[in-house]
Amino acid sequence: MKESITALRALQRQLYAFRYAEALISYDEAAVAPPESEAGRAVAAEEFARLRYALLTGADTAALLERAARDAEDEQQAAEVRELKREAGRIRNIPPGEYAAFSGLVAQAMPAWGRARKDSDFAAFAPYLEKIVAAVRRQAACIDPARDPYDVLLDQYEPGLTAARCDAFFAAVRGAVVPLLAEVQKRGAPVRTDFLENDWPLDKQRALSRRLMALWGLDPAHTLLGESEHPFTDSLYSGDVRLTTRYLPRDFTSSLYSVLHEGGHALYDSHVDAALDYTALQGGASMGIHESQSRLFENCVGRSRAFVECLWPTLCELFPAQLAGVTAEELYRAVNRAVPGPIRTKADELTYPLHIMVRYELEKALVHGELAVRDLPAAWNERYREYLGITPKNDAEGVLQDIHWAGGDIGYFPSYALGSAYAAQAMDDIRQALDVDACAARGDLAPLREELTKRLWRYGCLKETDWLVESLCGGPFDPAHYTAYLTRKYTALYAL
Amino acid sequence: MKESITALRALQRQLYAFRYAEALISYDEAAVAPPESEAGRAVAAEEFARLRYALLTGADTAALLERAARDAEDEQQAAEVRELKREAGRIRNIPPGEYAAFSGLVAQAMPAWGRARKDSDFAAFAPYLEKIVAAVRRQAACIDPARDPYDVLLDQYEPGLTAARCDAFFAAVRGAVVPLLAEVQKRGAPVRTDFLENDWPLDKQRALSRRLMALWGLDPAHTLLGESEHPFTDSLYSGDVRLTTRYLPRDFTSSLYSVLHEGGHALYDSHVDAALDYTALQGGASMGIHESQSRLFENCVGRSRAFVECLWPTLCELFPAQLAGVTAEELYRAVNRAVPGPIRTKADELTYPLHIMVRYELEKALVHGELAVRDLPAAWNERYREYLGITPKNDAEGVLQDIHWAGGDIGYFPSYALGSAYAAQAMDDIRQALDVDACAARGDLAPLREELTKRLWRYGCLKETDWLVESLCGGPFDPAHYTAYLTRKYTALYAL
Repeated sequence: MKESITALRALQRQLYAFRYAEALISYDEAAVAPPESEAGRAVAAEEFARLRYALLTGADTAALLERAARDAEDEQQAAEVRELKREAGRIRNIPPGEYAAFSGLVAQAMPAWGRARKDSDFAAFAPYLEKIVAAVRRQAACIDPARDPYDVLLDQYEPGLTAARCDAFFAAVRGAVVPLLAEVQKRGAPVRTDFLENDWPLDKQRALSRRLMALWGLDPAHTLLGESEHPFTDSLYSGDVRLTTRYLPRDFTSSLYSVLHEGGHALYDSHVDAALDYTALQGGASMGIHESQSRLFENCVGRSRAFVECLWPTLCELFPAQLAGVTAEELYRAVNRAVPGPIRTKADELTYPLHIMVRYELEKALVHGELAVRDLPAAWNERYREYLGITPKNDAEGVLQDIHWAGGDIGYFPSYALGSAYAAQAMDDIRQALDVDACAARGDLAPLREELTKRLWRYGCLKETDWLVESLCGGPFDPAHYTAYLTRKYTALYAL
Repeated sequence: MKESITALRALQRQLYAFRYAEALISYDEAAVAPPESEAGRAVAAEEFARLRYALLTGADTAALLERAARDAEDEQQAAEVRELKREAGRIRNIPPGEYAAFSGLVAQAMPAWGRARKDSDFAAFAPYLEKIVAAVRRQAACIDPARDPYDVLLDQYEPGLTAARCDAFFAAVRGAVVPLLAEVQKRGAPVRTDFLENDWPLDKQRALSRRLMALWGLDPAHTLLGESEHPFTDSLYSGDVRLTTRYLPRDFTSSLYSVLHEGGHALYDSHVDAALDYTALQGGASMGIHESQSRLFENCVGRSRAFVECLWPTLCELFPAQLAGVTAEELYRAVNRAVPGPIRTKADELTYPLHIMVRYELEKALVHGELAVRDLPAAWNERYREYLGITPKNDAEGVLQDIHWAGGDIGYFPSYALGSAYAAQAMDDIRQALDVDACAARGDLAPLREELTKRLWRYGCLKETDWLVESLCGGPFDPAHYTAYLTRKYTALYAL
């Protein structure tokens, strides 16, 4: 191996150590740490951001990347250089103090958000969000002063995504979803949901989670299921992937679908080629692609009739009293019922993209300076009335429900809706050669995992986003697959 | 603040971030992480060791420390320079590759030890221990080739400690303990322990732990109680201190005294002056001093008649069936019974120092090259027969019981016995002005915490070890307090 490539690998191992620490700190904060420990965490997070910045943007690194670009002898080496250059280029123009301070700010804002949400007290969180919005606006201006700042932010999560593309995508989705939802509400066959509201003992819910992890094929030697207020997945490397869930004593489907969703993320991260560990290519690619895998497992598989039927005996064994007099078909319909509600993570597949549209429009307005943070709760509630026909009863179930903005992630939400669309298209293509329903019905998802490994998972960030989307979907992205999937599913479900 | 002091603080914040990551990685490994995740952890740990080494021993840092030494304007600044110089001096002569590789080795050795212990398979752990012994011998030779290598290692955990001082200390302890134990065994009044062997439900044991944390005065906002195979305490900074325990379903006193012991460590770390956070003075001082606080709370308070009586109503409430027909006095005697057993962490106060002597002699022989790792199990069992009159039934309850050597900590064990001796002397002095038993009886340890804060806790590493020992003990160290305490306690307990 040439000297520059050896040095490149050493650089990436340092960056890996910082990422490892940052990912662990983040998991710990949400699932482990004592409640008022943010001061010391913020100092550490800020230092790691400073160190990572210095390492990535230093003159030595720039020179090394040029040498390594010339010396790269295979696709992986070239891709490592490409990703490092991209990452360095993105932050190089942000002043180092500003970059580090942002990590410290976020480390303080996340627990502040947790407390504000608990107390439904937006005013307590607003000062943090104001600082975060101001910071990401400044960052966007540093990264590329010539471009629209919201486009710059979108690009960080989904390379190539722009507000114009989002507008076109959401217009297509809206055009299909809004009339479909109106039809469901006007003349859909009734769905029985009375049995969901019950006591679902936490120990049984935990036992169910273990069964779900096994069904998904997540290896307990390398995968951990934790608990946190807001479910998420966090990967330290391909051999250590953590997902969390949240158990609600009165609603077992909440944790059920959180585990299936986060399990999709975890499968993806676990199946990236181990040769990419400790390099810039480790882990999943863009947020939209990542979300496509969680949505695919949560919805396309997890909410399919075949999978619900496969799960039914386990559920009846764990919850015999609660499910007495209920059929698998009734549960299938219940977990797919389309009802506008205030909470995104509890939303059905049909109303889900409307939740994303609210966030997309509001965060774009915040970044464009067209909406002040103090006016955000009112604007939120207004959009919910307009798109979903409901008003959140307080800010906890309204504007404070999501962690993303507290985590500094502005420009992230659209990738959720995009992920659902990638997933629907991928499933259309995969089904041409593989009977996914038959696999789900017998609880054997190995063939699906193999197919997704072949199309997507193994590559990590080795390939560019567009290439990966096309490989996953079997062709260029086309949201018509998504709207057709929703129309097909909900027309049948509600006998429209 | 002068430029050099500002730079000194910035340097210390970077070192703090590395320590924070390393402490979190270590807590996570033992209490959280999925079982087979050591490969990625070892890579990260090695990188942090490399970065810390480079930062501490670089030419820039050496020059900065000289400038800061001249510019220091108060005791804290001067002490920061002193500690950084000490730390840098200790590692400077170890080759950087060797230093980093040791962290990687330890990150691999710890889970290997866990598995070997579970299978009672010393041969599976031996290759790691061989590498660790070889590595610490090389390190000792680098640090100070003129000194005895074991003395060099002892000094890392307890500044100024030597094998000669250990020999004198252990001779004094042995001279008191061995005849006392013989007397206990020959003509001690019988102690009832039949009731300890019972089913102690884990949920009740966990409830007891919460009560103990409250009695010790550990703030749940800043202190976390986890569970791990080997109880330990790990502090990220004064506002985030984690302790762990291990619940045995058939023996509630195991976790009880683990929590009281680790709780003593946690109190110490929590009460260091917050002004020392993020500096080299953060956290407790030497290992012996740290252990004095855990032993003081575990034994001098936790195993006192007054405290057992204070705890009694809680215990009867949690375990009414198990404690029916038992008295508080019987429990007091049971948790203080002197019985030679194979396990150090389960040992009573009287036999405890004999367990330490075994480890002291064996690790000294390993470092001196007088004992080969492959001969260690036999040597271990032979010493247990000689000092404690028992033979471990396998290596899991013999040579594999402790994590320390797997963690690279050779030279650490003597500080445990020293800690007990510091604690006994400190209690003798504190009792002259404070009725500790009265505090323990009413479950109000605030006066004791205040006294220990004043004498020791607040200082962190601001003062030198000898100064701190004297401040804690109210005079120069004298092991006679310890042997007198043991003689007094066990003579009364067994009516000798």
